[in-house]
Amino acid sequence: MSTRLDLTQDVGALTARIVDIESVSGAEKALADAVEEALRALPHLSVDRDGDSVVARTRLGRGERVVIAGHLDTVPVADNLPSRVEGDLLYGCGTSDMKSGVAVALKLAAALEAPSRDVTYVFYDCEEIEAERNGLLRLSRNRPEWLAGDFAVLMEPTDGTIEGGCQGTLRAQVVTRGRRAHSARSWLGVNAIHAARPVLEILEGYEARMPVVDGLEYHEGLNAVGVAGGVAGNVIPDECVVTVNYRFAPDLSLEAARDHVSEVFDGFEVRFTDGAPAARPGLTHPAAAAFVTAVGGVPRAKLGWTDVSLFAGLGIPAVNYGPGDPNLAHQRGEFVSLEKIAECERRMLAWLG
Amino acid sequence: MSTRLDLTQDVGALTARIVDIESVSGAEKALADAVEEALRALPHLSVDRDGDSVVARTRLGRGERVVIAGHLDTVPVADNLPSRVEGDLLYGCGTSDMKSGVAVALKLAAALEAPSRDVTYVFYDCEEIEAERNGLLRLSRNRPEWLAGDFAVLMEPTDGTIEGGCQGTLRAQVVTRGRRAHSARSWLGVNAIHAARPVLEILEGYEARMPVVDGLEYHEGLNAVGVAGGVAGNVIPDECVVTVNYRFAPDLSLEAARDHVSEVFDGFEVRFTDGAPAARPGLTHPAAAAFVTAVGGVPRAKLGWTDVSLFAGLGIPAVNYGPGDPNLAHQRGEFVSLEKIAECERRMLAWLG
Repeated sequence: MSTRLDLTQDVGALTARIVDIESVSGAEKALADAVEEALRALPHLSVDRDGDSVVARTRLGRGERVVIAGHLDTVPVADNLPSRVEGDLLYGCGTSDMKSGVAVALKLAAALEAPSRDVTYVFYDCEEIEAERNGLLRLSRNRPEWLAGDFAVLMEPTDGTIEGGCQGTLRAQVVTRGRRAHSARSWLGVNAIHAARPVLEILEGYEARMPVVDGLEYHEGLNAVGVAGGVAGNVIPDECVVTVNYRFAPDLSLEAARDHVSEVFDGFEVRFTDGAPAARPGLTHPAAAAFVTAVGGVPRAKLGWTDVSLFAGLGIPAVNYGPGDPNLAHQRGEFVSLEKIAECERRMLAWLG
Repeated sequence: MSTRLDLTQDVGALTARIVDIESVSGAEKALADAVEEALRALPHLSVDRDGDSVVARTRLGRGERVVIAGHLDTVPVADNLPSRVEGDLLYGCGTSDMKSGVAVALKLAAALEAPSRDVTYVFYDCEEIEAERNGLLRLSRNRPEWLAGDFAVLMEPTDGTIEGGCQGTLRAQVVTRGRRAHSARSWLGVNAIHAARPVLEILEGYEARMPVVDGLEYHEGLNAVGVAGGVAGNVIPDECVVTVNYRFAPDLSLEAARDHVSEVFDGFEVRFTDGAPAARPGLTHPAAAAFVTAVGGVPRAKLGWTDVSLFAGLGIPAVNYGPGDPNLAHQRGEFVSLEKIAECERRMLAWLG
């Protein structure tokens, strides 16, 4: 099967074409090759490649540069390829998350020979798996100059609404300790599981903040996502670990978020295991404001963590905006509305045309 | 190496001899063979065998019959064989738990040609592993007539003190439920781990009974021995399971103990997983009273669960009494005092001679 991509075809047909080139995380090569080949055929773009990530840039010397990014990979195929059309809906693995967004970006890359702002198109690998393998993270470390810009749009599924910034996330283990004893003589020991009662009480009574940041309302959460304790059925346990996940608004740095968790569990042993910073929506930047005007609608806060945070780490304000429905992501019955893809393309062209 | 046992030798030397015949649970055959052979050589005993359990009985037509029992198996050898003597102490796997008790029983079997009460000697396999394989349980099911008697002494390590009856034990899972949600939008879910807070509060505030039963004071306990919950680091968990262990005094049946736990966790889902009944000390029985008088000392309540409960299930009052130190059981550095073995033998002879 040829993997040539025809960027002149309708954006819905192009989405279907891309969906049919399987690209589960770690196996994006065929699709990355096709994307690279199609972009190299466009004389107004300079194209670079790193692994299975492809970056294409206009070099018009405009006063602003915007970045339009999407990941090429999908979650594992679940008997949902090849794609199929039913009425307005295109079904198949990656239709919503996020090959429809990738198709829009490719259409823009081909159509916009002289966009109003310089544009950098980023197509990257391994977004759907462990963070360490994320292609955008790799580019931000190895090739930060390829990602330079004033504002970025990540074309993740948002159902056609601008979602600004993203909340941060961190996990911590709150540990209680006791002293082992045979459970037939439990008074000789100290029960670490019983000692976790106040930890759960703190979580139960925790009042989550809902701060407004750059005009968007966020909604935090502090929750137990795991609990483990116990040695054997006849032993008073000497350790209990409650794993908590704190989702925090972008007015807090990762460090400030850690400090908050330490304060909440003051007096307990707290071990931080992993974390990712939040990203401010950055909608006050001129390029972002122009984007909001062109796209229309009322932007909302992004609550989940997304790769916009990686742009934030490079000092680039970023938003999520794409035609897919985020609630369908990773589902076997995943689909996207063809009309929504076309609308997304029209709005992006209105902004950059 | 010959495995013949000379029952005329000193009880300490006999203990060492038995310790040196390895008999980890499931591999008791060599020792069971040696015990059977030695007992069959005694014309005043009739001997039966079931698997690696050996039962020997006098048939004198006395008005009372007592049972003297001990298990032949040990926990795994931990580089602590062969046995060795240092001063008064005999070191080695099984010295305390409970080959010293087995040696006393064998000495009694050989010496007491015409005891004051008929005696049944029971040597059984697989006590140190899962209850289902326990040799005494197997005998109680397949050959209850071999175990018939008015009173039983289980020669488990008690440091030379009579320990009456035993507490029962049961385990139950107390389950809390919630509704899954992505932890970035935790308010869409219900956190099952947070919901376990009142379960821990009940356990923390639980006041254990210390009832006196047949003159001995017991000490109950209700404790978490395990807790588990959590789906993934970014998911609000929909189930949390607190595993509790209730150790109950012998004034409660297993059923009454279950009812108590159900009441304590009224309103929660409670699943009972396993349980073993308690055993009353039975020290008011004439044969038991004579035993207490002969042995001397102040009997105390047995708090851990032991096989006396199996005798209780057959309607036979039973106590624990043996020369080993229970605190040394299952330890690599396990030992027994040679003088304590000899003292135990003297007292048993005083009772039955």
